[in-house]
Amino acid sequence: MTPASALPAVISFLSDYGRRDEFVGVCHGVMVRRCPTARIIDLTHEIPRHDVLTGAIVLRAALSYMPAAVHLAVVDPGVGTSRRRAVALRTAEQGRLLVGPDNGLLMPAAESLGGVAEAIDIGDSPERLQPVSATFHGRDIFAPVAAALAAGEPLADVGKPLAPAGLQCLELPRARIDAGALEAHVLQCDVFGNVILGASADQLEALAAQPGDLLAVSHAGTTHAARYALAFADVPAGELLVYVDSRGSVALALNRGSAADLLGAGRGDQLLVRPG
Amino acid sequence: MTPASALPAVISFLSDYGRRDEFVGVCHGVMVRRCPTARIIDLTHEIPRHDVLTGAIVLRAALSYMPAAVHLAVVDPGVGTSRRRAVALRTAEQGRLLVGPDNGLLMPAAESLGGVAEAIDIGDSPERLQPVSATFHGRDIFAPVAAALAAGEPLADVGKPLAPAGLQCLELPRARIDAGALEAHVLQCDVFGNVILGASADQLEALAAQPGDLLAVSHAGTTHAARYALAFADVPAGELLVYVDSRGSVALALNRGSAADLLGAGRGDQLLVRPG
Amino acid sequence: MTPASALPAVISFLSDYGRRDEFVGVCHGVMVRRCPTARIIDLTHEIPRHDVLTGAIVLRAALSYMPAAVHLAVVDPGVGTSRRRAVALRTAEQGRLLVGPDNGLLMPAAESLGGVAEAIDIGDSPERLQPVSATFHGRDIFAPVAAALAAGEPLADVGKPLAPAGLQCLELPRARIDAGALEAHVLQCDVFGNVILGASADQLEALAAQPGDLLAVSHAGTTHAARYALAFADVPAGELLVYVDSRGSVALALNRGSAADLLGAGRGDQLLVRPG
Repeated sequence: MTPASALPAVISFLSDYGRRDEFVGVCHGVMVRRCPTARIIDLTHEIPRHDVLTGAIVLRAALSYMPAAVHLAVVDPGVGTSRRRAVALRTAEQGRLLVGPDNGLLMPAAESLGGVAEAIDIGDSPERLQPVSATFHGRDIFAPVAAALAAGEPLADVGKPLAPAGLQCLELPRARIDAGALEAHVLQCDVFGNVILGASADQLEALAAQPGDLLAVSHAGTTHAARYALAFADVPAGELLVYVDSRGSVALALNRGSAADLLGAGRGDQLLVRPG
Repeated sequence: MTPASALPAVISFLSDYGRRDEFVGVCHGVMVRRCPTARIIDLTHEIPRHDVLTGAIVLRAALSYMPAAVHLAVVDPGVGTSRRRAVALRTAEQGRLLVGPDNGLLMPAAESLGGVAEAIDIGDSPERLQPVSATFHGRDIFAPVAAALAAGEPLADVGKPLAPAGLQCLELPRARIDAGALEAHVLQCDVFGNVILGASADQLEALAAQPGDLLAVSHAGTTHAARYALAFADVPAGELLVYVDSRGSVALALNRGSAADLLGAGRGDQLLVRPG
Repeated sequence: MTPASALPAVISFLSDYGRRDEFVGVCHGVMVRRCPTARIIDLTHEIPRHDVLTGAIVLRAALSYMPAAVHLAVVDPGVGTSRRRAVALRTAEQGRLLVGPDNGLLMPAAESLGGVAEAIDIGDSPERLQPVSATFHGRDIFAPVAAALAAGEPLADVGKPLAPAGLQCLELPRARIDAGALEAHVLQCDVFGNVILGASADQLEALAAQPGDLLAVSHAGTTHAARYALAFADVPAGELLVYVDSRGSVALALNRGSAADLLGAGRGDQLLVRPG
């Protein structure tokens, strides 16, 4: 019994493929052929195209709600180039298996689980579909390897060992407290117009802010009043609030509206939050 | 053997979460962890945001095509406020289990199955994920309770009993016949631009209209000729038709076009249909 | 043991229903009720509305990545008219079962598997849901028949035999080489702005082009330089490339951009590709 085969046959799947084309469905077909009993959970396929950073943040945040599984993730601007390796990793804690491109996408998730205990280069995996296309490694390499692992194939058998230290890392933006203000960057604006910052609940607490307090949010030269609230409906419709979102990140929302539109904020923008 | 455990482990899932973010995928993960054998049917996640009425109508219409199941539905503008309860209900007929916010969303579906036989407040359910976030009860309360029920947990064990009479109800717009005209409101415009009215097939029959007849549709001061037809292709491309849709509601369509665009009609608008 | 029951209970499902409404979810419910063990793979539901040609091309291309299955496909502009038959087919090779409207949608897929060995008219199938609506045969005819086949029902039992020669065919646009130039039509522009041509890899080779060569692409009176490349990242960002896509079709892309926007090309347009 290998560690891999002890995992239930669950595969979580995140990508930037979108749903308009048949890419996701074809990857499902490939996985079902290799592992007919695999249960596939589509985490999301709407990561903005080629946005490795957002993919990495979403994957890391979602992992703790997923069953122990093979976690397939494909956001892959370097697909088909020799510079970018394809990898399968085992995390030090929980022994989860991550499959995807070696461009940093998998690393924040792996780091949240104690780092990488074992890494395999799967570019020439015996499990790959041949001929491997230049543009669709999700179908030809990542999906078949993920399915093989879900079917109980030992990690060491799906490719060649790789030194974990050589894996590509990813720099996540970090928030800091300076002169009584929380300086943070926008990680993502979600579908509801909520603005998610690269700052955690304890950094907000370090401002000595309590739920109910009035805060000031500055962006691009304009300052807005915002209430530190626990729920959207704790402020009147149309008012700005600062809250800790469901992933544990500090975020801004407009009750029944779009904070991103109000602030004109987009990914990577810097914001300041201070007592109001 | 409890009644709940006699149901097959099927969960249908409707929400307004959309597919751009990972919310739906995370709820799937939570459910699979609690009930690994559950089969999850995504009914739709594109209910317009916070539109409890549309959610309720879609849920009620879809239920008769779903296997006996736990039916999870989340359209929840009041999430995180103390005013809004979280509930699990058993219907009088068929013993189906409905899980969602107590804001009326579940009630038309329950009423179509003989009403609520048993109601449980699940706000402090032992099944909930702790700490419960203020903004994502789908993940923290509704999904884990739905999965527990699918796993055979008795309804009475997932929370505290509640008097069904105290549940929040929902007023659905009703059509009426007045002076030989059918007066109805727009319930929904679907993705194809079809305009669905809050009127049933027998109300259309009460106009003494037969398939093939010419009707007159008035909206916002303008009257359009429309053919009462059985199928889109029964009228030439670009022509308006009145038909009974696949849910049994009276609806307007434009063959190979958008009736909503032609009429300029939106949800809640009043229309008059009379013999032409 | 009938041939049908020897297939695993897998159903692949392609349509133009989109995801905004509950149509896809309702079809899932109908299938699960008829065949509780069926595994359903959603190939795509975003075929452009009523675009039978695109649906046929996507279905044919995807089939080789799907497990042997019942393949349900619904792109059905003629729904509810007596002119359009509903059919279930068995392919000569692999014995795959195709279910959908008789409007040509299924035929390129069937032809790629040796043609149709057996055809059944399922318009009055004993498996259909009654009353059959005029507008939603996916739910009322196609889904229940597909599920019955997945459950092992013999093909001959789901309707009345039909002469395969009488099935509706579909004319696919064909590329040709003329005066040293490849003349081809745009089959589809995908979500990334890639322009897929109705030409195959060997037709590109017939131009004596090798990866790395410079080509000239003419469209609507304008000629663009393009590199014949294996991967997007083989050309600098913003440059046009010609490549063989993951389905084996010749295609145009812009590295980190939209070739469809650059060329102003849409479905059906003619392009010329020649050595540059």
